Amino acid sequence: MEIKYSELSKRTKSSEIRELLKYTRIKDIISFAGGLPDPSLFPIKDVTRITEEVLQEKGFLALQYGPTIGEPDFIDAIREHTNQYGEEIENDQICVTSSSQQGLDLISLVMLDPGDEIILELPSYLGAIQAFERTGVIMNGIPLQNDGMDIEILSNIIKKKLSVGKKIKFIYTIPDYQNPSGITMSKEKRLKLIEIADKYSIPIIEDSPYRELCYNNSKVPSLWALTNSKGIIQLKTLSKMLFPGMRIGWIAAEKEIVNKFSLMKQSVDLCSPTINQLIIAQYVREGLMKATIERAIALYQEKIACMLNALKKYMPEYVTWSKPTGGVFLWIKLPDYMDSKELIKKAAENKVIFVTGKPFHCDGSGKNTLRLNYSFPTIEQINTGIFRLTETIKEFQKLNKELIY
Amino acid sequence: MEIKYSELSKRTKSSEIRELLKYTRIKDIISFAGGLPDPSLFPIKDVTRITEEVLQEKGFLALQYGPTIGEPDFIDAIREHTNQYGEEIENDQICVTSSSQQGLDLISLVMLDPGDEIILELPSYLGAIQAFERTGVIMNGIPLQNDGMDIEILSNIIKKKLSVGKKIKFIYTIPDYQNPSGITMSKEKRLKLIEIADKYSIPIIEDSPYRELCYNNSKVPSLWALTNSKGIIQLKTLSKMLFPGMRIGWIAAEKEIVNKFSLMKQSVDLCSPTINQLIIAQYVREGLMKATIERAIALYQEKIACMLNALKKYMPEYVTWSKPTGGVFLWIKLPDYMDSKELIKKAAENKVIFVTGKPFHCDGSGKNTLRLNYSFPTIEQINTGIFRLTETIKEFQKLNKELIY
Repeated sequence: MEIKYSELSKRTKSSEIRELLKYTRIKDIISFAGGLPDPSLFPIKDVTRITEEVLQEKGFLALQYGPTIGEPDFIDAIREHTNQYGEEIENDQICVTSSSQQGLDLISLVMLDPGDEIILELPSYLGAIQAFERTGVIMNGIPLQNDGMDIEILSNIIKKKLSVGKKIKFIYTIPDYQNPSGITMSKEKRLKLIEIADKYSIPIIEDSPYRELCYNNSKVPSLWALTNSKGIIQLKTLSKMLFPGMRIGWIAAEKEIVNKFSLMKQSVDLCSPTINQLIIAQYVREGLMKATIERAIALYQEKIACMLNALKKYMPEYVTWSKPTGGVFLWIKLPDYMDSKELIKKAAENKVIFVTGKPFHCDGSGKNTLRLNYSFPTIEQINTGIFRLTETIKEFQKLNKELIY
Repeated sequence: MEIKYSELSKRTKSSEIRELLKYTRIKDIISFAGGLPDPSLFPIKDVTRITEEVLQEKGFLALQYGPTIGEPDFIDAIREHTNQYGEEIENDQICVTSSSQQGLDLISLVMLDPGDEIILELPSYLGAIQAFERTGVIMNGIPLQNDGMDIEILSNIIKKKLSVGKKIKFIYTIPDYQNPSGITMSKEKRLKLIEIADKYSIPIIEDSPYRELCYNNSKVPSLWALTNSKGIIQLKTLSKMLFPGMRIGWIAAEKEIVNKFSLMKQSVDLCSPTINQLIIAQYVREGLMKATIERAIALYQEKIACMLNALKKYMPEYVTWSKPTGGVFLWIKLPDYMDSKELIKKAAENKVIFVTGKPFHCDGSGKNTLRLNYSFPTIEQINTGIFRLTETIKEFQKLNKELIY
C-alpha cells in the first residue's frame, strides 16, 4: 500500500542508538547502554500483595476507564510524595501521564508549531529531542558546564533572537543529574536561569526524573520550589525510582495549563492505566516508595563509586568524565579526533557497549562523547566493563594516531 | 504564565460531551452515556492469580521497560486471539498501543498534514474526530444507511475531490456495531468499499473495537479478512472485550507501515506497560479471553433485548432507533425540530441521561440524534431508564409543538 506520510512523520527518524540494539544481543556483553533500574530493587512481593488488595477492594474501579487527568487517589499520592521531597504542589496542578515521555509528547503537541524557537541543553535527553524535532521547531543548544548550562551563552542567544523579532517558546532543562551528562545545575545558576526566564517571560520545562536519586545528601532546590511553581512546567516519572514497566508519570504546571495538557491527552490515549495508578498510590501511601528509593540510593552509591574508581584506575589521561552525585548516567569525553560511533564497533568486539553521544546533541556535534549507565550493570560488571572500555579506547587511540600521523 | 499555544492545541476543543459529566453526579440518575463494560464481567480472581504468577515468574521483565513495538509474548497472544476470530495476522504486522485511542493518535501523527482530505462516516466515533480534527484536515462525512455508509455518495465525493486535484488520505470506518450508531456494514457494501478504495489507491482505516461482541451468530467478514490485509490499517483494543483500565490495544498493517507507527510511538510514550501486556498475554493463552467474551455476549444480548423491548413498548411513533446486533451502543433519531442538547437538560431532571449526537457529526449536523449505551446499566435500569427517557421526549415534544404552532 502506498502511503503519503505526514511532514511530522518525515521529521521522525530512527536514531543511531536503535542501531546499537544488535550489540545488546552479543553473548556475555557488558552493557552500559540503556537507562534501566537495577531489577533486584523491584519490590515484587509488595507489588503482588498490593495488586491483590487493589483488585479485591477496588477491582471494578481498577479495571475500568478512569478520568483523563488521573485517578484522584493517585493524584493525592503524588502530592504526598512531592511534599516528602520538599516541593509543594496542589492536586489541580497535576495531570497524570503514561510516563514522562508522554509529558514531552503533550508539550510538543500543545506548545509547538513549525519554525518555533526553543532552547535546550547541549547535550540533552534524546527522547525530548525526538519529541520536539518532529514538530519542525528550531532547537538552540546551550553548552553544559560542570555546574549546568552556560548562562552567558543562554542570555546572548535570547537577546540575539529577540533582536531579529523571534521569541523563545520555552527553555528545556534537566537540572538534576542530567541525562546524558550526569551534571547538576548549581543553585546560583538556577536562580540566574529563573531571573532570565522571568525577564523575557519564557516558560521553563523542568524535566526531573532522577531528582530523588541523590547520593550526597546535598540536594539543590528544584526550579519548581525556587519559583513556587511560577513559570515552570515540571515533568516527573516513576520509571527511574521504581518500575518503568508501569509507565506512570505526571506533568505539573499552573491549573490552566494542566487543563490544556489534559484536554490534549483525551485525543492521545484517553487515560493512563487505572490499575497501575491505584497500585502505585497504595505503594506511596504505605511509605514503600520512600523505602525503595532509599534502597536504590544505597545500591547506586556503591555502583557510581565503583565506576569512578575504575575510571580513575584504568583510563588514560586524555579521557575525561563527569562526576555525578545522583541519577543513573555518567558522561565521557574523548579527544576531539575520536568518533564514538567507530569506537563502539571495537568495544562490542571486546564485549562492552555504551551509548554514543552525538544523538544527544541537537546541533549534530558531540561525536567524541559517550554515555555510560551504572544503575543496571552489577558492581563486578562495572569494574570489568570499564577495564574493557579502557583497553578499547587505548587500541582505538593508537589506531587513530596512526591514521593522523 | 503566558503561553502561546500551538495551532494544533487551538483546534483541540473541549467537547459538549464533557459538559455532560456534571449530570453523571446526580443521585440515582440512570446513565446511558459512556461506553463502559459491565464491571460484573471483570475477572478479578483470574487477573489476581495471573498477576501473581507473572510477577513471580517474570517480575524482572514485567516491571522493566519493554520494546516500543510490544512484548513478544503479547504479540504472540494477539495473533492467537485474532486467529480464533477468523482473521490471519503475522507478528510483524502488529504494533502494541496504549489502547486504540493511541492508534488514532499515531495515525493522526504519521499520516495527516493540515489541509489533507479524509473520509469518515456520518456519524462517527468522537475520539477519532478529535484526533483527526486537531491536525487541521478536511473531514468529509458519508451518511450512514442501515447497512453502512452510502456508497454512492462515497464514490461521488471521491470523484469530485479528484476532479479538483485533491487526493483522499484515507477512509475511516467502524464496520461492526458502529460507535455511535450501532450499525453494521453489510458484506456487499464492504466489498464495494474495498473495490473503490483499491481503484483509487486509498488506504482504509478499519476501527474494530466491538467486533468480537456479536449477538446473532452472523458475523460479516472484516475488511482485514476480505482483503487479506491489503490496503487496510486495523485498530483493535481490549477495552470493550475485557478491561479498559489496562489500556492495551494494537494497530495492525503491513510491516513497513507498522514500523512507521512504532517509530512514532518512541517519541509518544516509549512503550506500553509491560506488566499489563504480560498479564493479558497469559489471559489469552489460558483461553480465558474467549470465555470472558462469551460471558459478555450472553449478558449484553439480554441487555440489548431489554432495551429494544422497552423502546418498542414506550416510545412514541415519531422516534426511530437502530437495531444493533453487537457492540454496546444504540442510536436514536428524534424529529428534525428537536435538539437533544436541550432534551438532555429535561432528561437529567427526570434522572436519565445519554450522549447528544451532534459531536459525532464532523459536519455539525445531527442535533436531533442521541446515543444510548446498554452495556453498563443493569436490566432494571435499562427498563426504567427508557421509560423515563420516553416521558421526557413526550414532554419535550409537547413543548416544542407549542413553540412551533
